[in-house]
Amino acid sequence: MALTNPMPMGPWKLTVYEQENFQGRRLEFTSACPNIMECGYDNIRSLKVECGAWVGYEHSSFCGQQFVLERGDYPCWASWSGSNAYHIERMTSFRPVCSANHKESKIIVFEGENFIGRQWEICDDYPSLQAMGWHNNEIGSMQVQSGAWVCYQYPGYRGYQYIMECDRHDGEYKHYREWGSHAQTFQIQSLRRIQQ
Amino acid sequence: MALTNPMPMGPWKLTVYEQENFQGRRLEFTSACPNIMECGYDNIRSLKVECGAWVGYEHSSFCGQQFVLERGDYPCWASWSGSNAYHIERMTSFRPVCSANHKESKIIVFEGENFIGRQWEICDDYPSLQAMGWHNNEIGSMQVQSGAWVCYQYPGYRGYQYIMECDRHDGEYKHYREWGSHAQTFQIQSLRRIQQ
Repeated sequence: MALTNPMPMGPWKLTVYEQENFQGRRLEFTSACPNIMECGYDNIRSLKVECGAWVGYEHSSFCGQQFVLERGDYPCWASWSGSNAYHIERMTSFRPVCSANHKESKIIVFEGENFIGRQWEICDDYPSLQAMGWHNNEIGSMQVQSGAWVCYQYPGYRGYQYIMECDRHDGEYKHYREWGSHAQTFQIQSLRRIQQ
Repeated sequence: MALTNPMPMGPWKLTVYEQENFQGRRLEFTSACPNIMECGYDNIRSLKVECGAWVGYEHSSFCGQQFVLERGDYPCWASWSGSNAYHIERMTSFRPVCSANHKESKIIVFEGENFIGRQWEICDDYPSLQAMGWHNNEIGSMQVQSGAWVCYQYPGYRGYQYIMECDRHDGEYKHYREWGSHAQTFQIQSLRRIQQ
């Protein structure tokens, strides 16, 4: 199975497997899948990203925990989760991500929700926001001006992942409730650009 | 408790806690600790890195799983592990890491063990080695020419972590057996510089 790709950039290609270690039935995708169960799969247990950057979701219709998926092999749930905090071994939907030219990515982070308080323009990857001067372990709101970014709960790109894109929500994420249905706090301690 | 720091760079400061979420007894460190049990702790369950970059180890004397620790808050084991593959919630020893000026970090990766086969000089962070042209999901050997690096089993900085430093092993890691006692394959799919 290979769907055509409606998106301008790309191409994208992702192969999912019903079992771990690339075993069992497989399906190839070149565009978004809102519900793998409608393809006759109860779950995805391993995958290979062959082209482009993708984001996977715990639930159907792109809801629940988010997992950034860049090119490479993912033999088990742990290989894309990176979070033990809320351990549901499930990926039900996924879609391509449009990322900008790496050097043109830009995001502005704000101390408070609704784009208030101290702000800081970021154009690079930061495994520790505090190491480069951010005053605490939280970000109140964000404006993505270019590209796609992934923010993480903990330093070193660990814990819950939040995908932020300039072409979603007009790039505006003014409260953690807009980061995703799994977000429960303002805690973000590392962030980086998503590579195509 | 605060030990003096014998290392030229720094300063380094890390506070460990006996319980999760920064509860229970605490100890401050500014240099290496080869065995937390000798300080009367059975384990470390949360920590805060206040200055410098550190590496934590599963076992005493800097053995077992490795965890890069950059500035920030780590409220539980999952916040520094990032790997579910081998789930032992333990950190017994840790030490500071000397990282180069970010722009001067350099590592050469080789296709085969003992520095043979295709090679490639890396001076930047790569969440996916395959996305930028590396031919498979393995690295046979590595030479760290400057700075300190962390290599990961999976794309997007996930899975087992391997800390590679120019001032250890003469910066030469010619087989996965030299990456650490937890290394069982040549699989490396992402790597990045460690920030001070």
